[in-house]
Amino acid sequence: MGDRGNQIRFGILGCAGIARKVSRAITLAPNALIHAVTSRSADKAAKFAAENGFPSTVKIYGSYEALLDDAQVDAVYIPLPTSLHLKWATLAAQKKKHILLEKPVALNADQFDSIAHVCEENHVQLMDGTMWMHHPRTAKMKEFLSDAGRFGQLKTVHSCFTFAAEPDFLKNDIRVKPDLDALGALGDVGWYCLRSILFVFDYELPKKVLALPGAVLNEYGVILSCGASMHWDDGRTATFHCSFLSNLTMDLTAIGTKGTLHVRDFVIPYEEHEASFSVGTKTGFDDLVTRWIPRPGEHVISTDLPQEALMVREFANLVADAKTKGSVPEKKWPTLSRKTQMILDAVKASIDGGFVPVEVVG
Amino acid sequence: MGDRGNQIRFGILGCAGIARKVSRAITLAPNALIHAVTSRSADKAAKFAAENGFPSTVKIYGSYEALLDDAQVDAVYIPLPTSLHLKWATLAAQKKKHILLEKPVALNADQFDSIAHVCEENHVQLMDGTMWMHHPRTAKMKEFLSDAGRFGQLKTVHSCFTFAAEPDFLKNDIRVKPDLDALGALGDVGWYCLRSILFVFDYELPKKVLALPGAVLNEYGVILSCGASMHWDDGRTATFHCSFLSNLTMDLTAIGTKGTLHVRDFVIPYEEHEASFSVGTKTGFDDLVTRWIPRPGEHVISTDLPQEALMVREFANLVADAKTKGSVPEKKWPTLSRKTQMILDAVKASIDGGFVPVEVVG
Repeated sequence: MGDRGNQIRFGILGCAGIARKVSRAITLAPNALIHAVTSRSADKAAKFAAENGFPSTVKIYGSYEALLDDAQVDAVYIPLPTSLHLKWATLAAQKKKHILLEKPVALNADQFDSIAHVCEENHVQLMDGTMWMHHPRTAKMKEFLSDAGRFGQLKTVHSCFTFAAEPDFLKNDIRVKPDLDALGALGDVGWYCLRSILFVFDYELPKKVLALPGAVLNEYGVILSCGASMHWDDGRTATFHCSFLSNLTMDLTAIGTKGTLHVRDFVIPYEEHEASFSVGTKTGFDDLVTRWIPRPGEHVISTDLPQEALMVREFANLVADAKTKGSVPEKKWPTLSRKTQMILDAVKASIDGGFVPVEVVG
Repeated sequence: MGDRGNQIRFGILGCAGIARKVSRAITLAPNALIHAVTSRSADKAAKFAAENGFPSTVKIYGSYEALLDDAQVDAVYIPLPTSLHLKWATLAAQKKKHILLEKPVALNADQFDSIAHVCEENHVQLMDGTMWMHHPRTAKMKEFLSDAGRFGQLKTVHSCFTFAAEPDFLKNDIRVKPDLDALGALGDVGWYCLRSILFVFDYELPKKVLALPGAVLNEYGVILSCGASMHWDDGRTATFHCSFLSNLTMDLTAIGTKGTLHVRDFVIPYEEHEASFSVGTKTGFDDLVTRWIPRPGEHVISTDLPQEALMVREFANLVADAKTKGSVPEKKWPTLSRKTQMILDAVKASIDGGFVPVEVVG
């Protein structure tokens, strides 16, 4: 822990399950602390604070507005349902709070543009909660993917994130409710697939997106399972599959002309302090085609802080720069959010249109 | 090695690269031996025999017909270009030779039906050269996939087989020639992807196949890279990608409601005598969603004989049964070949039609 005076003071806007993990991350990050928490009622916020072992100094608010009016709050973490992002992120920015915003960032790119615009006007940092971007493994994977000698030119990517939701989740979770997280599995687990594909493509948007037949929607039209195929110039392609209906799986595979990268836990590593990925380079066979030469190898990366604490630390660093040096907010993060949301919108449009090809216009 | 008198005597019809591997497999299989080899010229066949250390007792023929006329030949291995399968498999069957036929088995399912029909008429066993089917790992994977407690209901499959062909291959190999292996990468590496998907689906054909945009064809229209999405009843899906243009990759992922299977070397294991696959069952997270519980585990399977020798042994056993007990040829194997070819035809038709959905009619 650093000096409390230099730590970025977070307000937590809502007590969703994910807020527990991020609260711990704020506590773990050396340059951040929890200053206040709120929910739709003070009782609920107090219960959340107690259950998660918050210090008694943490302020409990009974409304989102009250927390946003606390002048000591530097930044807010917003884990609210997606349908509430536009309203509360806008208000937070207007109150000069820097914003760590859960994914999906908005119901569509237009809404997100509105949020990003008000953040820019008010000189506040905006970053989404895609934790794995901040794991040191991610930077190591990028090194491999950028290495023309080991990976060559990118050809295709496949990404998959599924988990088997309990019956109660499929009935009651906000992620299956059309008025709350209307993007369902596409907005939740699909978000990570889309970001991972963008990550491998160096954030170059695809030209075309085609949702694959076989998407499963619930009675309200919320996506429970879907996939898509994407297309770039020069025949480069990607596919993804996301679902609430299948056993937990988190695959990212990137194949280049000279190399292959595999990771099976790209969103949340198997363990907090160590994560790995596998690479093959110029892989071939022996003379009789009976074994691989060279055999692909595993890279293991350790980290003292879990990826969510690294995310908070990175965000808090940017907030500190804005606060103390008057730095302009880092545009990289909202740009990545926007691109992810744009592809998400295209997949949704393709499904809504009956699995038609949709052009992505940056 | 068993008693020579009880061993099935193979004739090798053509000296393709793959014939070297299968010749070794015939030598390794305890119930098989190489009796004769032929090519378009006796010189070529003699050179092949010498280079591969065949015993001097192996007969060298200068024409395919001559080998088929050798009454001592029980079975032939046919590694000829796909466009020659119909002619030579038909003639071999008419000469009462049992047939181990390289994949793809034919240029289309109609051709294959003709081959299968003549084999049936002449009471000869027909089996294709899909070696990985015979690895003990494959049976172990099937045990997991069939286990409702560990795997649950199948939801989706992804299969990928790519390798980076050398410039010379892309110019001169039979697999890029429209008059030889006209099915290109789809018939070669794609064959394995399709078979692996069928394997996971217990050989239930998909209802629909949709080739994905982004297929790469050479100047003669031969497929160098392609993929497709497939659809069964109840929202079950599969995707595959195959290519001559990307680094060696061999992935099979099957996801059920309760379990996930991963294998990264499904066609040719990394090593001959040991192969593994990974399974996750009822995988979830700890309370704070910071790590996986339980962590997926690896299954390692040893084998004394390489999978291609196990294939030869299985085939030779069936031939021996037909020879000595007058058993009817095992229909399972040509049935699997036919189903694989049918999906292959559907993918090809989808590409040829401009990436349109194609129904698969069994």
